[in-house]
Amino acid sequence: MIAKNNVPEPHSRAALPNSNRVYVAGRIYPDLRVPFREIRLSPTQLPSGKTEENPPVRVYDTSGPWGDETYQGSIEQGLPPLRRDWILARGDVEAVEPSYRPVPGRSDAAIPPTLRRQPLRAKAGRVVTQMQYAREGMVTPEMEFIAIRENLGRERLYSQAGGNGRRPLGGEAFGARIPEFITPEFVRDEVARGRAIIPANINHPESEPMIIGRNFLVKINANIGNSAVASSIEEEVEKMRWATKWGADTVMDLSTGRNIHETREWIIRNSPVPIGTVPIYQALEKVGGKAEELTWEIYRDTLIEQCEQGVDYFTVHAGVLLRYVPLTARRVTGIVSRGGSIMAKWCLAHHRESFLYTHFREICEIMRAYDVAFSLGDGLRPGSIADANDEAQFAELQTQGELTRIAWEMGCQVMNEGPGHIPLHLIKENMDKQLEWCHEAPFYTLGPLTTDIAPGYDHLTSAIGAALIGWYGCAMLCYVTPKEHLGLPDKKDVKDGVIAYKIAAHAADLAKGHPAARQRDDSLSKARFEFRWEDQFNLSLDPETAREFHDETLPQESAKAAHFCSMCGPHFCSMKITEEVRQYAASQGVTESQALERGLEEKAREFRERGAEVYPQA
Amino acid sequence: MIAKNNVPEPHSRAALPNSNRVYVAGRIYPDLRVPFREIRLSPTQLPSGKTEENPPVRVYDTSGPWGDETYQGSIEQGLPPLRRDWILARGDVEAVEPSYRPVPGRSDAAIPPTLRRQPLRAKAGRVVTQMQYAREGMVTPEMEFIAIRENLGRERLYSQAGGNGRRPLGGEAFGARIPEFITPEFVRDEVARGRAIIPANINHPESEPMIIGRNFLVKINANIGNSAVASSIEEEVEKMRWATKWGADTVMDLSTGRNIHETREWIIRNSPVPIGTVPIYQALEKVGGKAEELTWEIYRDTLIEQCEQGVDYFTVHAGVLLRYVPLTARRVTGIVSRGGSIMAKWCLAHHRESFLYTHFREICEIMRAYDVAFSLGDGLRPGSIADANDEAQFAELQTQGELTRIAWEMGCQVMNEGPGHIPLHLIKENMDKQLEWCHEAPFYTLGPLTTDIAPGYDHLTSAIGAALIGWYGCAMLCYVTPKEHLGLPDKKDVKDGVIAYKIAAHAADLAKGHPAARQRDDSLSKARFEFRWEDQFNLSLDPETAREFHDETLPQESAKAAHFCSMCGPHFCSMKITEEVRQYAASQGVTESQALERGLEEKAREFRERGAEVYPQA
Repeated sequence: MIAKNNVPEPHSRAALPNSNRVYVAGRIYPDLRVPFREIRLSPTQLPSGKTEENPPVRVYDTSGPWGDETYQGSIEQGLPPLRRDWILARGDVEAVEPSYRPVPGRSDAAIPPTLRRQPLRAKAGRVVTQMQYAREGMVTPEMEFIAIRENLGRERLYSQAGGNGRRPLGGEAFGARIPEFITPEFVRDEVARGRAIIPANINHPESEPMIIGRNFLVKINANIGNSAVASSIEEEVEKMRWATKWGADTVMDLSTGRNIHETREWIIRNSPVPIGTVPIYQALEKVGGKAEELTWEIYRDTLIEQCEQGVDYFTVHAGVLLRYVPLTARRVTGIVSRGGSIMAKWCLAHHRESFLYTHFREICEIMRAYDVAFSLGDGLRPGSIADANDEAQFAELQTQGELTRIAWEMGCQVMNEGPGHIPLHLIKENMDKQLEWCHEAPFYTLGPLTTDIAPGYDHLTSAIGAALIGWYGCAMLCYVTPKEHLGLPDKKDVKDGVIAYKIAAHAADLAKGHPAARQRDDSLSKARFEFRWEDQFNLSLDPETAREFHDETLPQESAKAAHFCSMCGPHFCSMKITEEVRQYAASQGVTESQALERGLEEKAREFRERGAEVYPQA
Repeated sequence: MIAKNNVPEPHSRAALPNSNRVYVAGRIYPDLRVPFREIRLSPTQLPSGKTEENPPVRVYDTSGPWGDETYQGSIEQGLPPLRRDWILARGDVEAVEPSYRPVPGRSDAAIPPTLRRQPLRAKAGRVVTQMQYAREGMVTPEMEFIAIRENLGRERLYSQAGGNGRRPLGGEAFGARIPEFITPEFVRDEVARGRAIIPANINHPESEPMIIGRNFLVKINANIGNSAVASSIEEEVEKMRWATKWGADTVMDLSTGRNIHETREWIIRNSPVPIGTVPIYQALEKVGGKAEELTWEIYRDTLIEQCEQGVDYFTVHAGVLLRYVPLTARRVTGIVSRGGSIMAKWCLAHHRESFLYTHFREICEIMRAYDVAFSLGDGLRPGSIADANDEAQFAELQTQGELTRIAWEMGCQVMNEGPGHIPLHLIKENMDKQLEWCHEAPFYTLGPLTTDIAPGYDHLTSAIGAALIGWYGCAMLCYVTPKEHLGLPDKKDVKDGVIAYKIAAHAADLAKGHPAARQRDDSLSKARFEFRWEDQFNLSLDPETAREFHDETLPQESAKAAHFCSMCGPHFCSMKITEEVRQYAASQGVTESQALERGLEEKAREFRERGAEVYPQA
């Protein structure tokens, strides 16, 4: 793929520097190979002239086989079906003929035979969801895979020097309960309870198990998808791989173009992460874009088609009720959700509740036969600060709660979608109401954007809100790219959006006090302090950009070994001076606790001398 | 200036689209001309075929005369001395001969005669600070200027249709008390109390008065400055103008190169915003970079030199006490403040308290003779998540509080600098302790960065923390650019940093419930909803980028009048469908209150039917 300036665009398969893929085996399921990326570090040069090893840092890796340098596959073959044997071993599914028949004239792309798979479906009367298994007390391979994945190798980490000698920073988790170690049993329990979901369609065996729930690492989603304005299938597949290279935990394919089925097939067969869709978009495509002509039958067939392809979660806007629609009439920005406005239009045209609501149990029956999770849409989410937390939005959220219970009753996994555009001080109310009304089902929000005044920078206006709601307990953050409100994201936008959201999610994990989250921060900070420039670059979310920015100021290779930073020059470097302070403190025999004592004594003396005068304004 | 790809870089004087400069006169001082940028909007096309005017939006403008298209001056002449007559009219200053003598061989740049000004100084025994005037009950022209500026024309706004008919969103201000209207008397009172400062050196009459305090709009600072690695004076002046074009409320010149005095002179003479510096950098330059050779005399002379040039606030790291230094020895990243590490090194070398601490009252005497405000430095701020909120940091903060009282006693204006690197859940403690220990003096923080893992994106990791601490009550946010930790910011980085921080500050203003902040959001959202693309671009913080992103997907001029957005194509546009919903609601005679009533009735019925079962998980 060639960018505008004729420089070849970086490709998703280019390896990240100084990294290698490692796999960890299971205990219950010894054949599991849970992938991590390990970043190798250089040793610390001690003042004595000796060196001290720095252990490699193990990070969560969403890139799948594409991130394994030894993997030789191509997108024409699709990824290996990692989970296929696990699925078949449960003995509750059977192969079926695909129901999809192309709409004449609505496709000009073909799916090559190498990508074709025969769909599976639950045997009659069976519920094949991870929730069902969890309720039955079964720890699936998916669950053990996730437990290992979420721990990020922290058992080894803890065994080093009493918890790595780190100063504890605590955390405020607002009621989330993140255990010290994630066990397979904990995963099972959270899924059974509905507090976490494992999006894992039996027809997407290529995906690596992951979990969405507030007692786990905060996840992020990247949206891709071509539109009526054509972008090629190959481009969309590459966008998906590109997004997962930088850390997208799931990808939503929001394509609306003519090759919607074929694009999706290519994406799913090549995706190591769960894929979400909004089936109403394709249904609408089938009726020529006329919302009022949608029917339950067309929608149902679309669901089945996508279930058979392997979509892992569906956005279903079943909470848009007829009586809520007029509540949006006086808004500054009305209804801004595509699905929401389609359903609103349908409701008004027919003057009755939508088929999504009236056929909700039938939808559950379809989805549980493939283990497609619900992402209950927020069709009436606010599209501006002015409309935040209004009656329409919260009315729908209550209905989402009602539908969550029904889906659970049917054995389906559920998360709830949330806003949108919310000023900082109204974000927590969203999280609190969702937890209460939707019974602690995982929350999945779009941003929220904390101001409307910066189109072109909405990855940033929304990363602020995303970090906050992630901290408060939101389980997955749907990214917003710089192109939001303006155009379709290209690869640069996808990367910018993913990085912004990895930052937000990680900031939230740190604030929640997630036991494994700090390792990367501490390793990077130590590298920074010790002028291990290469390690600093390699540990960052985007090593290439970090290196490039450094090299703009100090391009010489020698500068990367220099014991001063590019901002200050040799005399001014505060880190260099600190090293001297440290040596001085050591030479004076001052230990930390002695220093602390002295400081406290001094302060105590001061306090005695000045008495109540110390904090007279308190 | 030519960028790398040989395309001329955009220049700070290029006008922002559809905007014009307006000036508002004072009431107490009728000659005041308080500048705003007014963004002209196109009318709304009503379904009836009629049109409805949209009033222009008045925004705070930091660009000074450079942002006024009618202004003809050049940087060789410097800006007109706006405040000179106000200063002279107070009758408490006298002209003095400049004390500065160039260090032989340490400059290769000259200040042209057209930029030379004779310095002013307080007459013997006089204190010429805005704080002193405020305490004496005087409302200065600076104070009325600020009152008008902070109101953003909201009197006119409120007079429209009962507060503009907006749905109130409230706000959470954490103890800040932002009045409905800012009066000159309120400004005076806040300054007298020390809760706000007006950085306004009598030798920087070119600057337009502005205020820093938590009961006012949240402000942002941009750092510029060349380093040992040369960047030209012209480049630095342009960076300053560039930063103020995009919204920097103050600029800190952190130059450390050989032409430090000359660079600063060019910057101050051309700056419409207050300029801050860290005088210890230049003092260190004078002793060849050897911290231990610094003396009180060299520092004092440097202060006077910079006071005479017109620097509006000084970062003074007087809180770095000898006994605090060893507290940093076991940190992951030691001391990361340049000033802090210089002073720590001095303290250790001499084994006594620094001259900044022991001569603090003399420093106050110098600064109050020119009205240079204190920015009490946080030399021991944490440089990593691991070191956040530690003993060393908070020990220094307590000393900042002690020094704040002394400075106030001496009639000096003071703000306190804060961190740095802080995870989300520890940010509030910083704000709370600062308010308590520093007696509500304005807080001025660098970020804080909420994670260490994203060098190359630290404008973003820190904008998250900045929005949060701004919301909690921080008065000014020092920007961080994408180059932080890696290299020197170029113009693109300066702009990226300023925009990121304008977003953070504005998000904070919205959340605090600032009465004028929402106007721009609401106007932009209304424009977005009504497909007034040009207005949406023009109202955004960065119109050029918004337009450019839109045009990448839909370059045709006609698309900017199209009633659908580029993301969805004509069929899918949710905004278009909403318009139909609205027309439907109107045709059914449904008013908002009726709809609301129906919704509530329905919900009440449901609740009765399901009783206590509705929220059983609560």
